[in-house]
Amino acid sequence: MANAKNVAILGATGAVGMQMIECLEECDFPVKNLKLLASKNSVGKMGTFMGEKIEIHEANKDAFNNVDIVLSAVENDVAEKLIPHAVNSGAIVVDNSSAYRLDKSVPLVVANVNDEDIKNHSGIIANPNCATIIAMLCIAPLHNEFNVKRIICSTYQAASGAGILGINELNSQLVSITSEKPVGKPSAFQDQLAMNLIPQIGSFEDNLYSTEEMKMQNEGRKILHDENLRVNCTCVRVPILRSHSESITIECEHKTDLAKAKEILAGAKGVRVIDDIQADNARNRYPMPLYTSDQDLVFVGRIRNDISNVSGTGISFWCTGDQIRIGAATNAVKIAEQLK
Amino acid sequence: MANAKNVAILGATGAVGMQMIECLEECDFPVKNLKLLASKNSVGKMGTFMGEKIEIHEANKDAFNNVDIVLSAVENDVAEKLIPHAVNSGAIVVDNSSAYRLDKSVPLVVANVNDEDIKNHSGIIANPNCATIIAMLCIAPLHNEFNVKRIICSTYQAASGAGILGINELNSQLVSITSEKPVGKPSAFQDQLAMNLIPQIGSFEDNLYSTEEMKMQNEGRKILHDENLRVNCTCVRVPILRSHSESITIECEHKTDLAKAKEILAGAKGVRVIDDIQADNARNRYPMPLYTSDQDLVFVGRIRNDISNVSGTGISFWCTGDQIRIGAATNAVKIAEQLK
Repeated sequence: MANAKNVAILGATGAVGMQMIECLEECDFPVKNLKLLASKNSVGKMGTFMGEKIEIHEANKDAFNNVDIVLSAVENDVAEKLIPHAVNSGAIVVDNSSAYRLDKSVPLVVANVNDEDIKNHSGIIANPNCATIIAMLCIAPLHNEFNVKRIICSTYQAASGAGILGINELNSQLVSITSEKPVGKPSAFQDQLAMNLIPQIGSFEDNLYSTEEMKMQNEGRKILHDENLRVNCTCVRVPILRSHSESITIECEHKTDLAKAKEILAGAKGVRVIDDIQADNARNRYPMPLYTSDQDLVFVGRIRNDISNVSGTGISFWCTGDQIRIGAATNAVKIAEQLK
Repeated sequence: MANAKNVAILGATGAVGMQMIECLEECDFPVKNLKLLASKNSVGKMGTFMGEKIEIHEANKDAFNNVDIVLSAVENDVAEKLIPHAVNSGAIVVDNSSAYRLDKSVPLVVANVNDEDIKNHSGIIANPNCATIIAMLCIAPLHNEFNVKRIICSTYQAASGAGILGINELNSQLVSITSEKPVGKPSAFQDQLAMNLIPQIGSFEDNLYSTEEMKMQNEGRKILHDENLRVNCTCVRVPILRSHSESITIECEHKTDLAKAKEILAGAKGVRVIDDIQADNARNRYPMPLYTSDQDLVFVGRIRNDISNVSGTGISFWCTGDQIRIGAATNAVKIAEQLK
């Protein structure tokens, strides 16, 4: 296969790593050889790629010999330990952790938003936070037209943000509750998630915002190349499996135009508008996370003027997208495709 | 009992009606006689008050003879049909429907916020929308200090907002899902609520906001006596049983002061602050709906400066409160207590 690459998945047994393998298959990525890397515990287990069983190897500093592209889906500590070795071995790494996202020498890329930044890499390209990717796919095209100055966002984030352990924990809590058994002590989340909402994702910073909440501003500024962008985010974990949803209000420099905004979103790559509010309420359509899971698009609806913005520069909308795919694995593979 | 009243519950078999009976018991309301009224279907069934069985009678225009206070927990159409008869019979009605809330001759009261409006009634006092009561208990005291001009609110509303049918529908969907059976067609909600979020509560108005979303502005203006208050609300149904949560950002006329805001909320009646964010993340405390249910308080936390507000006039917080109690029945009973 011409230009086929040796690809390694770092963190191949996690929710995002497994999804990366599936995304490579689906987009017919020109893979010469696929290496699956995970922690010691998983060594000897088997993954599957294009119908073939592939043994999982230990992720260590010597694992990247002869690898062209690494898709990394490990936590920050492992990323920081291993990615420099991958780069030194000559690989280009698309990293899903937050370790390198704000590093000035590392492009932070939402595919279909700022692909042109990819070319500036020095071996690492960072994949943004999932909630940030989902928001930016909708906000960036509006920013191009209206110049977004401020974002107020409340998130409704799925269990999958805490990986397979998060999904399993929610499912097992629901089984306990419906069979009237005691719910076990939570470990993937700070508290019981079933029948609950947890207004904490990540840890807290001195300004009383969580690390997850600050990502939307810190990463959003870098992705949109606008150091003055102001973002107030409230991140909440909800008892949903794998689609994140976000209630977003933007404030722009220019007067907004609702019809134009809808037209822009309808034409935006990676975005699908589901927004059919009937005056007679005969049928109303809007995105719901149950139906947006396992898809490579962000769905947006409830697009309307911000009636609390008296200067006519505000728009509100609701968007939802699969956290594991569009919020992580799909974006990484779309970046990798541009390295071909 | 001195000043004991003849009280009727209109809609005594619903979630709010049943809670009203319990609230009357809990606050030792001076009830001379309690009449339980419901639709024809429930006639002959029995309710319980202070350990005594009480037969349920049909709610019709003749049901209000010799009744001093009616606590109404029926839908708008029934409220509009029956409440005028109750008033004509000499009763004072505390109505939980939205039928009379914006009527100029009807006070709209959040207990502990604008109790002084009660005295202006002409037979009807309206209980605000549940999400509005919960928000106003936190916002009103901040408004008194900082003059709130604008509210941006995203809600996380529990199944109980659709009454017993809503709670039963969510529970039965969860049983189906965890036992791997097909989920039945939804009837209490627009779509399946289990494992899902529904960004519609009520029907939609021409401005593309839902009726539930507009209540926060329309009712908020009346409660705070401020026709210029601007509110942008996004109302979302979440798979939770009975506590509503809200992510709220306020913009004020005056510069805000975070320490002062926390002090005000800590002293606000009907409000309890749970807000202990540790710099080292050793322990973080904030309100969660699983633990705020079946209580007569609104819990508020995640209180912080709005970092997207450059003029230093913004504060964000997260609040959660039992929808059936503080959002409906408790507020009605607290109003009725002031009619003694």
